[in-house]
Amino acid sequence: NSKLKIFSLNSNKELAAEIAEQIGMPLGKSSVTHFSDGEIQINIEESIRGCDVFIVQSTSQPVNENLMELLIMIDAVKRASARTVNVVMPYYGYARQDRKARSREPITAKLVANLLETAGATRVIVLDLHAPQIQGFFDILIDHLVAVPLLSDHFLNDANIDLENAIIVSPDHGGVTRARKMADRLKAPIAIIDKRRPRPNVAEVMNIVGNVEGKTAIIIDDIIDTAGTISIAASALIESGAKEVYACCTHPVLSGPAVQRINDSVIKELIVTNSIALADEKKISKIKQLTVAPLLAETIIRVHEQKSVSTLFD
Amino acid sequence: NSKLKIFSLNSNKELAAEIAEQIGMPLGKSSVTHFSDGEIQINIEESIRGCDVFIVQSTSQPVNENLMELLIMIDAVKRASARTVNVVMPYYGYARQDRKARSREPITAKLVANLLETAGATRVIVLDLHAPQIQGFFDILIDHLVAVPLLSDHFLNDANIDLENAIIVSPDHGGVTRARKMADRLKAPIAIIDKRRPRPNVAEVMNIVGNVEGKTAIIIDDIIDTAGTISIAASALIESGAKEVYACCTHPVLSGPAVQRINDSVIKELIVTNSIALADEKKISKIKQLTVAPLLAETIIRVHEQKSVSTLFD
Ligand SMILES: Nc1ncnc2c1ncn2[C@@H]1O[C@H](COP(=O)(O)O)[C@@H](O)[C@H]1O
Ligand SMILES: Nc1ncnc2c1ncn2[C@@H]1O[C@H](COP(=O)(O)O)[C@@H](O)[C@H]1O
Repeated sequence: NSKLKIFSLNSNKELAAEIAEQIGMPLGKSSVTHFSDGEIQINIEESIRGCDVFIVQSTSQPVNENLMELLIMIDAVKRASARTVNVVMPYYGYARQDRKARSREPITAKLVANLLETAGATRVIVLDLHAPQIQGFFDILIDHLVAVPLLSDHFLNDANIDLENAIIVSPDHGGVTRARKMADRLKAPIAIIDKRRPRPNVAEVMNIVGNVEGKTAIIIDDIIDTAGTISIAASALIESGAKEVYACCTHPVLSGPAVQRINDSVIKELIVTNSIALADEKKISKIKQLTVAPLLAETIIRVHEQKSVSTLFD
Repeated sequence: NSKLKIFSLNSNKELAAEIAEQIGMPLGKSSVTHFSDGEIQINIEESIRGCDVFIVQSTSQPVNENLMELLIMIDAVKRASARTVNVVMPYYGYARQDRKARSREPITAKLVANLLETAGATRVIVLDLHAPQIQGFFDILIDHLVAVPLLSDHFLNDANIDLENAIIVSPDHGGVTRARKMADRLKAPIAIIDKRRPRPNVAEVMNIVGNVEGKTAIIIDDIIDTAGTISIAASALIESGAKEVYACCTHPVLSGPAVQRINDSVIKELIVTNSIALADEKKISKIKQLTVAPLLAETIIRVHEQKSVSTLFD
């Protein structure tokens, strides 16, 4: 029976610490620093021979730094004779580059999958991939967890929300399945924001499919990046008669003007997970962060004990 | 007969432009930018179907950014149906992490070789690898160019230098072969700096093997990084009676206090190549940069024309 070891890299140390605490064991000892020229220097400071090693790292900003840190750590773990090398990657960077939208573009989401395999990962645990097809980019084992239950439970338990009158809104066509899943849990109907551009170089029109009149609208998305779409969508919902607008997403990328936009928007509250750590300046009162540590801890234990994790997928 | 295309990434645009000029063709059109969240976005803006594509990129600082840029570009070039994907990497970052010096360390130089292959490179062209064994880390074709002839010619043509009295100095045991090669070209003897630590936690002693009395010492190294060793070595040479000290290296990493140290040192002049671009604040009068563009241009043409490049290796 091999031992379990969990290591944290630099992208999301609080989450890694919380996972270890949930499991009731200390994090593995390692040092991840830089040489004077910026090259990453990693040393694992305890034996991991024959162990099931789990490395916690989101490839959030700075994405290239965090990804290289992860690849080098995988290499070190592999060469230190670990039995299995499991990557716990709550946020999978480059997921939106998952196809050639134009000629002569890379498919970086596939490249990243190949790099993880080449470095020596034997399994990856991810949360809400931008497209579920990215699972098929891997030839190694992949567990694809979802945050819909966690986000839904938050609304189910929030006494301030009038669930009788709730409607779940997908901000685009790609997100309808996710909205449907949340709607099932909240026993609510769905609406879809149907963006279209009447002519080239003319502003997009936000058409709402579904009746939001007098409703508490809850927008659900996987990633909120610059928050442009979501804040305009929220205004469109209010203009169409919605009583109030909440928003939620799994991955708070929140780059550039995002936090300012959310603050200035009609969105009442934005619920996110801690798949990506929030810098202090992003911790505004409108943004509430839920923890995925229990979900990830449970997954790690089941994988280590060779039990099924499929019940965690829905 | 397939067409030749040369693309530059962001690490060393001047060198890439010079190479293209030498060959007498424009650089390929591509855009390499960042999304709002820092992810790299690459688009190749001309057809490269069936072409021999050469991508010029040194993995110098910021090394992780430059390496990911290169990997994503290789992926894009491969998917755009190039016939061959050739990486021109004058400076190979992470080369010093080429073995496990302690337990549970990564071998990042090997990881980088694997990543380049996985992304889709079919050939790499490098200059003065920190250890020539890194060639064996690749299963794809590798051309290993050397800068000793270029550096030697500089001293042979510099009328200020008293070649009759020159002595070539290796700053450590690992560099003796390189010093020997330069000594052959300059018809000079060699000396070796024999660093040793008498007891743990006691300062290193710089013992000079060879007689430098009254000589013009020329130190040769592959990489100058923080310039600690080289400036101390130069003082030790003067203390041992050397008349003056020059230094040269292939790769001017020059991180942290390097430029200040060189400026303050007894080194008269430091000759480097442009394998790594020098930021403006590093362009001090003591540092003279020689160009490797003709060497790389010649290599690219020979590879493209399927001629031998081995005469460029020594
Ligand atoms: N980091 C990123 N930030 C913004 N857009 C991106 C990013 N990565 C990829 N994209 C673009 O987003 C589009 C895919 O998003 P989606 O249609 O939501 O799947 C593609 O056109 C990509 O070029
Ligand atoms: N970027 C770097 N900067 C400084 N030292 C490094 C770097 N990468 C690796 N090293 C260390 O340099 C040593 C190898 O250098 P060398 O003995 O000159 O081959 C190893 O102990 C490495 O841990």
